[in-house]
Amino acid sequence: MKTRKDYILSLDADRWLFHADMLVDKAHVVMLKERGIIKKQDVVKILNCLNKMDSDYFVDHALPSYEDVHTAIESVLIKGIGEEVGGKMHTGRSRNDKVATSIRLALRDELLGIIRNVNELRSVLLKKANENIDTVMPGYTHLQHAQPTILAHHFLAYTDAFARDFLRIMHAYELVNVSPLGAAAFASTGFQIDRERTAKLLGFDSVLENSMDAVSSRDFAIDVISCYANLMTNLSRLAEEIILWSSSEFNFVRVSVEYVTGSSIMPQKRNPDYAELIRARTGTVYGCLMSVLSICKALPYSYNRDLQEVTPHLLTATNISASSVSVMKSIVEKLELNKEEMAKQAQVGFTTATELADTIVRETGVSFRTAHKLVADLVNEGVALKANRGVSEVLNELDAFSTRAIGKKLSARGLTEKKVTDALNIASSIEKRNIKGGPAKRELRRMIRARKTNLEKDDKLVGSKGEKVRKSLDDLAKEVKRKARIINVMKR
Amino acid sequence: MKTRKDYILSLDADRWLFHADMLVDKAHVVMLKERGIIKKQDVVKILNCLNKMDSDYFVDHALPSYEDVHTAIESVLIKGIGEEVGGKMHTGRSRNDKVATSIRLALRDELLGIIRNVNELRSVLLKKANENIDTVMPGYTHLQHAQPTILAHHFLAYTDAFARDFLRIMHAYELVNVSPLGAAAFASTGFQIDRERTAKLLGFDSVLENSMDAVSSRDFAIDVISCYANLMTNLSRLAEEIILWSSSEFNFVRVSVEYVTGSSIMPQKRNPDYAELIRARTGTVYGCLMSVLSICKALPYSYNRDLQEVTPHLLTATNISASSVSVMKSIVEKLELNKEEMAKQAQVGFTTATELADTIVRETGVSFRTAHKLVADLVNEGVALKANRGVSEVLNELDAFSTRAIGKKLSARGLTEKKVTDALNIASSIEKRNIKGGPAKRELRRMIRARKTNLEKDDKLVGSKGEKVRKSLDDLAKEVKRKARIINVMKR
Amino acid sequence: MKTRKDYILSLDADRWLFHADMLVDKAHVVMLKERGIIKKQDVVKILNCLNKMDSDYFVDHALPSYEDVHTAIESVLIKGIGEEVGGKMHTGRSRNDKVATSIRLALRDELLGIIRNVNELRSVLLKKANENIDTVMPGYTHLQHAQPTILAHHFLAYTDAFARDFLRIMHAYELVNVSPLGAAAFASTGFQIDRERTAKLLGFDSVLENSMDAVSSRDFAIDVISCYANLMTNLSRLAEEIILWSSSEFNFVRVSVEYVTGSSIMPQKRNPDYAELIRARTGTVYGCLMSVLSICKALPYSYNRDLQEVTPHLLTATNISASSVSVMKSIVEKLELNKEEMAKQAQVGFTTATELADTIVRETGVSFRTAHKLVADLVNEGVALKANRGVSEVLNELDAFSTRAIGKKLSARGLTEKKVTDALNIASSIEKRNIKGGPAKRELRRMIRARKTNLEKDDKLVGSKGEKVRKSLDDLAKEVKRKARIINVMKR
Amino acid sequence: MKTRKDYILSLDADRWLFHADMLVDKAHVVMLKERGIIKKQDVVKILNCLNKMDSDYFVDHALPSYEDVHTAIESVLIKGIGEEVGGKMHTGRSRNDKVATSIRLALRDELLGIIRNVNELRSVLLKKANENIDTVMPGYTHLQHAQPTILAHHFLAYTDAFARDFLRIMHAYELVNVSPLGAAAFASTGFQIDRERTAKLLGFDSVLENSMDAVSSRDFAIDVISCYANLMTNLSRLAEEIILWSSSEFNFVRVSVEYVTGSSIMPQKRNPDYAELIRARTGTVYGCLMSVLSICKALPYSYNRDLQEVTPHLLTATNISASSVSVMKSIVEKLELNKEEMAKQAQVGFTTATELADTIVRETGVSFRTAHKLVADLVNEGVALKANRGVSEVLNELDAFSTRAIGKKLSARGLTEKKVTDALNIASSIEKRNIKGGPAKRELRRMIRARKTNLEKDDKLVGSKGEKVRKSLDDLAKEVKRKARIINVMKR
Repeated sequence: MKTRKDYILSLDADRWLFHADMLVDKAHVVMLKERGIIKKQDVVKILNCLNKMDSDYFVDHALPSYEDVHTAIESVLIKGIGEEVGGKMHTGRSRNDKVATSIRLALRDELLGIIRNVNELRSVLLKKANENIDTVMPGYTHLQHAQPTILAHHFLAYTDAFARDFLRIMHAYELVNVSPLGAAAFASTGFQIDRERTAKLLGFDSVLENSMDAVSSRDFAIDVISCYANLMTNLSRLAEEIILWSSSEFNFVRVSVEYVTGSSIMPQKRNPDYAELIRARTGTVYGCLMSVLSICKALPYSYNRDLQEVTPHLLTATNISASSVSVMKSIVEKLELNKEEMAKQAQVGFTTATELADTIVRETGVSFRTAHKLVADLVNEGVALKANRGVSEVLNELDAFSTRAIGKKLSARGLTEKKVTDALNIASSIEKRNIKGGPAKRELRRMIRARKTNLEKDDKLVGSKGEKVRKSLDDLAKEVKRKARIINVMKR
Repeated sequence: MKTRKDYILSLDADRWLFHADMLVDKAHVVMLKERGIIKKQDVVKILNCLNKMDSDYFVDHALPSYEDVHTAIESVLIKGIGEEVGGKMHTGRSRNDKVATSIRLALRDELLGIIRNVNELRSVLLKKANENIDTVMPGYTHLQHAQPTILAHHFLAYTDAFARDFLRIMHAYELVNVSPLGAAAFASTGFQIDRERTAKLLGFDSVLENSMDAVSSRDFAIDVISCYANLMTNLSRLAEEIILWSSSEFNFVRVSVEYVTGSSIMPQKRNPDYAELIRARTGTVYGCLMSVLSICKALPYSYNRDLQEVTPHLLTATNISASSVSVMKSIVEKLELNKEEMAKQAQVGFTTATELADTIVRETGVSFRTAHKLVADLVNEGVALKANRGVSEVLNELDAFSTRAIGKKLSARGLTEKKVTDALNIASSIEKRNIKGGPAKRELRRMIRARKTNLEKDDKLVGSKGEKVRKSLDDLAKEVKRKARIINVMKR
Repeated sequence: MKTRKDYILSLDADRWLFHADMLVDKAHVVMLKERGIIKKQDVVKILNCLNKMDSDYFVDHALPSYEDVHTAIESVLIKGIGEEVGGKMHTGRSRNDKVATSIRLALRDELLGIIRNVNELRSVLLKKANENIDTVMPGYTHLQHAQPTILAHHFLAYTDAFARDFLRIMHAYELVNVSPLGAAAFASTGFQIDRERTAKLLGFDSVLENSMDAVSSRDFAIDVISCYANLMTNLSRLAEEIILWSSSEFNFVRVSVEYVTGSSIMPQKRNPDYAELIRARTGTVYGCLMSVLSICKALPYSYNRDLQEVTPHLLTATNISASSVSVMKSIVEKLELNKEEMAKQAQVGFTTATELADTIVRETGVSFRTAHKLVADLVNEGVALKANRGVSEVLNELDAFSTRAIGKKLSARGLTEKKVTDALNIASSIEKRNIKGGPAKRELRRMIRARKTNLEKDDKLVGSKGEKVRKSLDDLAKEVKRKARIINVMKR
Repeated sequence: MKTRKDYILSLDADRWLFHADMLVDKAHVVMLKERGIIKKQDVVKILNCLNKMDSDYFVDHALPSYEDVHTAIESVLIKGIGEEVGGKMHTGRSRNDKVATSIRLALRDELLGIIRNVNELRSVLLKKANENIDTVMPGYTHLQHAQPTILAHHFLAYTDAFARDFLRIMHAYELVNVSPLGAAAFASTGFQIDRERTAKLLGFDSVLENSMDAVSSRDFAIDVISCYANLMTNLSRLAEEIILWSSSEFNFVRVSVEYVTGSSIMPQKRNPDYAELIRARTGTVYGCLMSVLSICKALPYSYNRDLQEVTPHLLTATNISASSVSVMKSIVEKLELNKEEMAKQAQVGFTTATELADTIVRETGVSFRTAHKLVADLVNEGVALKANRGVSEVLNELDAFSTRAIGKKLSARGLTEKKVTDALNIASSIEKRNIKGGPAKRELRRMIRARKTNLEKDDKLVGSKGEKVRKSLDDLAKEVKRKARIINVMKR
């Protein structure tokens, strides 16, 4: 903080809001004209001056000298065309509703972008799943080998998690894309403005009615950052697996050279820095959420300056989420797989134990709990782990255990060497798991097809939302142009 | 921690899950029977034994001696009917999918309850709004008097905030009420179970397909607690206002005797403890969210024991949210209002300054920015604040300021004493704010009507969700009964 | 994110670290020379080149084109004097220990600055306390009037809270100001470097020994941000009171014009924006803490790229804490008090009820619990609240209540009108509270004296820490100069 | 929540506070007697009645029916000996100071316990380090093999981290162990109580003077939970490594059977559940911290009911931290090491590359940056990775690279086959790292010795703190006994 005034600025946030703020000004002025609140000649001057302002130069040079982006625009306007005319733009509104409107506009565009990124990630994961319907790998619980599975099944698990992120962000979008404009300071205004009109010009889906609610609430920000937190959590889990899998010990994958870095002193290093940063920035997004929650807690209505401090967190969390999804998409897309090592590890740790127990249940009719104990005996005595132990020996041991436990041999109740062999075979053990959601090939193919269809539908939905916004903003641009022209004609 | 084993228990969570867990067992056994995986005779024994277990006694006495609720039920079952039969219940599933299913079932019911509480709060706020369409009060920004407003408008702002909480929780409900059952450890199972069937019997809307996703994901918990965090934030803001308003200095409201407490040494105290605790517990819910996020961050797939630690936070946040909404409803319902004090304070601090500036704009055509400055001059010189100063003097001063600023008298441009009088009158100043979402009476009445209609629609929606669940569970109960009876017949 | 590489940069943090990084380079090179690891001629070239680099230009223009500040400096060095010589600077160290060292250096200076700010705030609060030993005000619990107190006592409560913040930051400083330099990547180095020497040259108190610990740990960051979180919490509470007290309803204080802002539409507003932002940014610091915690959670040793993401949070939290303390100091210093209103409110709400109960205990020997109930009866029947009710009537009522409750009149057990009068008198009621820590004048004066003495002692401690650092850095500068000169001589 | 009243209870916290609360009552009564505020006969009755109450029965049965523990004790007392006498206990104090005192007392004992646990963990780590001075393992950065190191060095890194946790908790202890008793509601009391005396009887180090500060502040809770958060973060990192190391892929360690669990369906599993729960509960402690911070944020002075909500979080975080340290101690103590696998992995990934580059620098005088590049070339062409490649071939390749890069052969500048062999040898490469804090044997032995000495000193410090408290409480017990006896004599 160099000066006292620096303490109340939030320049990065204001930069983010500039373009949205200009749109709000234009829509507001168009509406004021239509309602006869500002005269035609004044509207022309204001709109022409605003049109000239719309540039990077403004953001870099004019903005920093003012208290905030709204004041900056109005001040430059007044400098340009005088207070008598320029001073009319702020009629019937306040900074409170203006900032709330600008944040929602800027955020809306970011959300559409993030949703598209999420869908691209889903698409890449589906592609990878499709390529790996035959890639056997160890499945883990507690990071211990549990049962063998298929890499496609693993990728599909993430696909489904990100599909829910899509849904959540779309829901949040609905609560974001409503217009607080016209709420003024919090009590609306005595000018007969048309809130529906500005909402429509700005591409909002509807008006956020109650004027106190409109300026006081930031639940949409909490909502959106919560969605990000969930999304980033999913990304962090995938990032963690990529980091684990690219260690020497796992050696399942090799991250593409663009997404690793070297070391300043260790020439042999391939560090998965991008994945590490996705993991770390998940924590940053959590922090943004915690900040925004504790900022909003117990604030009396209506607007308090505290709400200004919400915006930078919204911006940070938005930037991180957008870029992290995008980076993850590329990492996954370019991931090289070491299928041999995966297949090799799938054998380690008696991962078919569950299938053996299930087989005993099916073939002999003993209860699952009993079968589970018999196989546990087998594991604890290390029988099944010995590579050179033949299936007949395994069956003999099982018979010995079952005789002790339930007084009967399993082989006498229908367990054959063939069934044991089958149970211990990784591939056939996986193929048995063909119920809904399981890793058997047929089911994997069905799931991939269904998810592709869903993704296309979701893409269309985003597309139509984006299209609607674009159309509105085009209309606004046309109105701005038309309002200016008509009056140009008049002025002659 | 008394013993090593205590470290891995989560008894409160297990108590919460008991009834859900029993339902899961029953639905699973019914399905196993239907698919021919367990024989009829065994099914009878299991279901009969489960039916007997369904009691508080179990939760208080049997539960604490086992590792978790699932193990407890199975163990008691096996004790009752032997391992040969009882050991079959766990066929084709795992604790991983079972716990995920039970949490979703238990949570679903809580969510329906909370949603109903939220709607009751909305209803009470609407009622209070309806009673206070004439109650003038000061409106605040930055806790400073800003403009006069109407208490109904203030209550409606909260009504709308809680309506969004309703929406969010309903969205979360959709992602909660899906069935992970049948995912087993994470790779589904080789038994030919019917996941659609158990989902239907348990009242789920659909199956959570991918079996790895089904046991690994807790995004629904993050989602739900995020909704709570938003809801509690809204409650904390209302609680804060109630605390402020019941201070000697504000003296706007008197909290009902049931929701205040006395002091151990100060006999005169009426402390708003309930409102304070709502405010404080908002922080506790934030902590639950932070915990769950950082627990889930960077967990590799599939199930890790860490996920167990999510459940107590979900339970705590659920309990707090449910009870806080309910307490707030009663506090608001029984709030006594000191309308005279509100009206008196609405006069303090020149709250009609904005309206005076707006009037100048409308009557004289000077720009808003200029009018704003003229009124600011008036305020800074303290003219308007003097109670005994007449309107003509105010107009004179304004003329003096405007002569200095723009070389013209406002009275010469159309500002009359009547208009100034009107602008400075609180009631008429509010009535002018009749645009959409404003505090004018007509608009308040329209908003109340519209919100009542919406609330009825929302109530119906919750009702139908609850009805659907209830019907499914009735069906399950019937199936359980039927399965038992048929076999009872057979056994003779 | 414009490019993939942007994702791994943290430019703001690097800017913050630049000057520290240059110091580390110089100290390292001086030591390498002293240990004979780099030759004299090479040292001259390196040091001379580093000396030229030390400028704002570098930070603004060279820095952004490199991966990080360390790489930037080395690269510019190598460009300047060639890889054959410039490439020697990085001998016997790594980016991992270098960044850890730079962060600690930069943070150390910030901490000394913040501690000084905290002490200035304590000083201002003591001054304000000293000026307000006679300023009567209502004391609150639950924001309800409880007992009368003295403003000096209130300010001293904050003084003591900030004195603990001082202590905590000093403790944190001790764990920050240790040198990780020489730990290299994590396993130290085979070069015979002298870690004690570089630590001394850089003003560190000691060496952080274990080389893996040195690069892996960020507990000092968690520690420091925790201190900030506590400090900001204390500031937020004072800020809240300033906001409350400057409302129309309280009207206890008027915030100086430099620390309020106006409104874009309400000309009469004096919004306490600075205090609101202190309150809000407290939430931002909480978020920084949560981010850093969840980033560090469960990171395997040693260095992971995740740790880079800690630094921006440390920087943000540092900036906010430093500026907030400083802003608060000025707000308090310039706060105008409305003593009449405070005194008036001290009368409202029967705040001397406790003293009346205490007096009954002392004079009549009835138990406190009984006396408390009798006074509560008095309050509930509203007797004591009636302004025109004389003392004799109060005594009569008390007698009536006590006859009913314990069968005796209080006046018969020693309670006189004089004692009742005394108890109900605000000033004398406060003066009775003269035990250690109470608000009686004598005790307030003693506390102010004692705290002034402590503050002087604390100031000296900070001074000596700062002096020690400054001396070391002076020595480093001299060594740099001397090493260069000697060799300049040699070169002729 | 079953009833409205349930909302304001915090039974678990009250149970925790019971014994502390009884001590406070006794010390307070002893002091009241000594100052002549309560008569001897009354004191006997009160103390005798309190002595009888001191039992588990009270906590389980009486406590739940009252508003809080303080009210419960007083109520039972009054039931036992009548209001006339029992009602005197609360003279000169309030629930506000009483609860603050009880929390500090209860917490103080917990802190001493946790500190002892931390020191035991340090002791076990030192023991493990001492046993593993020869255990070679791969050292990691970014979870990639970086350089070879020694397991003792790794354990010592944690030892040092936990030593800092010790320091932090000791600092926090100092701010906890001060007495708020006598502050009453917040304004102290008109009774001439002796705050120094009760502080001494309760084993506090001093009086927390300012009476408003004494009841309003919970910075000690934030401080303590921050320490826990740091401690748990360190534990979570060690837990993560144990989880990783016990995976099939790493296979470095085997967690003792007492700290693993099996699976409900996979008989072969050895899940590291305890380590996973330590990792997860770290998140819970973060949540406690977040809760307490946001509860305390912006609370006006003095006491607010919100502060009650702080205590359960303090209790939860305390329980988790105490038990987690203790569990970790046992896990580490019983950890079985697979030294062969560690040694084998230390070879994988060209971990001596840095040493080779350093050797080139030392032997040939080329700059480190250049040497780094030459070794990087070697790595990238895969030369060094080929197992069967002889040293002479490595040297040839290096010569080829250096000729290309700097126009000279390294062998011509002094690099011999012997030096290359030496650099590539894991053991000798580690032994070269013998500077302060490095992994060479001599330095490891020195560090272990020094840390043992420090630990003994730290143990003594904790011992003396505990002794001081115990002595005070013994004195209190004697005083209670003596006060009772004397008066018993008198009563005859």
